[in-house]
Amino acid sequence: MGTKLLARYPWASSPFIVAAPMRVMSGPALALGVSSAGGLGFIGPGVKTQKTHEDLEETLTLIRKQPTETPALQSLFPSTSSLLPVGVGFQLWGDDIDVAVAAIEKYKPCAAWLFAPRDGSQEYDAWSRRIRGASPETQIWIQIGTLKEAKQLLQISEKPDVVVVQGAESGGHGRSEDGMGLMSLFPEVADAMEKSHIPLIAAGGIADSRGVAATLCLGASGVAMGTRFLASTEARISKGYQDEIVRATDGATSTKRTLLYNHLRGTFGWPEGYSPRTIINKSFHEHQAGTPFEELKKRHDESSKLGDAGWGQEGRLATYAGASIGLIPDVRSAKSIVHSIQQDTLERIRSLG
Amino acid sequence: MGTKLLARYPWASSPFIVAAPMRVMSGPALALGVSSAGGLGFIGPGVKTQKTHEDLEETLTLIRKQPTETPALQSLFPSTSSLLPVGVGFQLWGDDIDVAVAAIEKYKPCAAWLFAPRDGSQEYDAWSRRIRGASPETQIWIQIGTLKEAKQLLQISEKPDVVVVQGAESGGHGRSEDGMGLMSLFPEVADAMEKSHIPLIAAGGIADSRGVAATLCLGASGVAMGTRFLASTEARISKGYQDEIVRATDGATSTKRTLLYNHLRGTFGWPEGYSPRTIINKSFHEHQAGTPFEELKKRHDESSKLGDAGWGQEGRLATYAGASIGLIPDVRSAKSIVHSIQQDTLERIRSLG
Repeated sequence: MGTKLLARYPWASSPFIVAAPMRVMSGPALALGVSSAGGLGFIGPGVKTQKTHEDLEETLTLIRKQPTETPALQSLFPSTSSLLPVGVGFQLWGDDIDVAVAAIEKYKPCAAWLFAPRDGSQEYDAWSRRIRGASPETQIWIQIGTLKEAKQLLQISEKPDVVVVQGAESGGHGRSEDGMGLMSLFPEVADAMEKSHIPLIAAGGIADSRGVAATLCLGASGVAMGTRFLASTEARISKGYQDEIVRATDGATSTKRTLLYNHLRGTFGWPEGYSPRTIINKSFHEHQAGTPFEELKKRHDESSKLGDAGWGQEGRLATYAGASIGLIPDVRSAKSIVHSIQQDTLERIRSLG
Repeated sequence: MGTKLLARYPWASSPFIVAAPMRVMSGPALALGVSSAGGLGFIGPGVKTQKTHEDLEETLTLIRKQPTETPALQSLFPSTSSLLPVGVGFQLWGDDIDVAVAAIEKYKPCAAWLFAPRDGSQEYDAWSRRIRGASPETQIWIQIGTLKEAKQLLQISEKPDVVVVQGAESGGHGRSEDGMGLMSLFPEVADAMEKSHIPLIAAGGIADSRGVAATLCLGASGVAMGTRFLASTEARISKGYQDEIVRATDGATSTKRTLLYNHLRGTFGWPEGYSPRTIINKSFHEHQAGTPFEELKKRHDESSKLGDAGWGQEGRLATYAGASIGLIPDVRSAKSIVHSIQQDTLERIRSLG
């Protein structure tokens, strides 16, 4: 199954490493960096869907600049004339389907990662049909986090090409109440979806070769990482935020699933049942201590004027991150991250065998 | 590290499969069944510590009955004259150290699994010193569920021989607020403990070869399972309870961490910060709906007179289980469970390599 999946992304090598579409932070440089290293990079949703157009245009520009500036791309992307060697992610509840489909039709990213519909799994049908109509070769990826969602996917008419199974360890928005660690969740979802033969990608709490090898053992055809790529040189992220990713340890106590930081940032409207994981700081502690939201919001907004000092344990800004933060010791290039994890994973599996 | 660990349990084979000491339900038949299959079975804490004496005496009787009734034991346990080929578990907050140490001195189980001290990690020192004084060859196992506990273990003077790292997917009592899925927890604990060279056993949410192979990739020297062995012919468990383990699916929504069922059963006194995972039924739903505890208790106690009908979705009795319930399709012998998981794990790792 893994081999068949890789054939759809001819530049990619095994084990299949995917950079998840992190909102705003996964831009063209990160996505291309991961793909050109033999993985698959996704561009994240923008604050507005129109941003996806700009990001895809920038991706194309970066590729066209080869071979002078990015010589690796030329040899790695033989098929760039038809499909862009990066994927693009959409949050269905917030993104504009018309703008999204127009971007896919124009730029033909190799994959579209769909997530968080407002009205349930039927919404995937509508998006998938439109996307396939606009760019038949663009692969449809759908992210789920529960067994129930897996069973619902089996009922929709436009079957996805890939399903991402996200455990409760994840940093990106995931299931709040009905989330579960990958160790139990993944095999149960895999059993439920077995007959569909849809390849599954594991996500959530994975940041090094141990997690990659482990989820391959659970039955994954590849692994999506977010937080590890926040600590990449190519991530579109503030230094203060990135420093926190490297500094923080003990994912179980340093991070919490909470909507607080969404609300402090003015982000409302996520469908019921989703929340992100965040490295907690003063905003959270004061919230726990009973400080009213209006006061927290005021302090948060003041903090946001401090630049990088707005993050950290004395800071108040949102620091979305997965429970794997303790496994990320440094900021490195996307290429270095992908290559070292691939190599270490192969060695790990070989040494066990 | 795995090989060195196995040498201490000469009947055991790789991958190292351990049956966790489940209170009351892990009796001599299950523990011996697992050990005689090439794993390591633990006898669970009893309602009173004195029960451990009875269970170890019964274990000895079972072994002495060989070769007529249990011929496999004779060949597998060459060293039964010095050490019993089963371990025994204690909940430090509730068990009587004098009674426990007397049992260990008399029966010399090969391992003692210590868990849940009332007064923090120093209590492990007191227990470990007494146990080593009474039976120097008995290996000390300590179960933890957080990075903080791992760091505390590095400070105590009596170092354990084995540390069990339990993820939030577990059924047995684990960390409530600061628990985390194994996928992120295990590697971070392993990094923190690396220099101690203490072998780590993974536990929580593992029920088949996929989880075993995955946790070996995370760095575990072996795997402890509880819930899988509840669905063994040797478990000391009511049929109604066991039927629920086989029936239930969707660990994320069918199980919850809650103290409710402890309290309904009259079990109070667990140290702060621990709770078990339970398959939810009418007691939980009515608790959520606001039914007062006294009324829930009355209904629960009536339910307990129904025998096996007290369990199930229309039942009210405690059904402690891990999030792996969806991975357990049948009741089988301990031997069949251990052998098939060992074989499947080896094949899985081979096929990935």
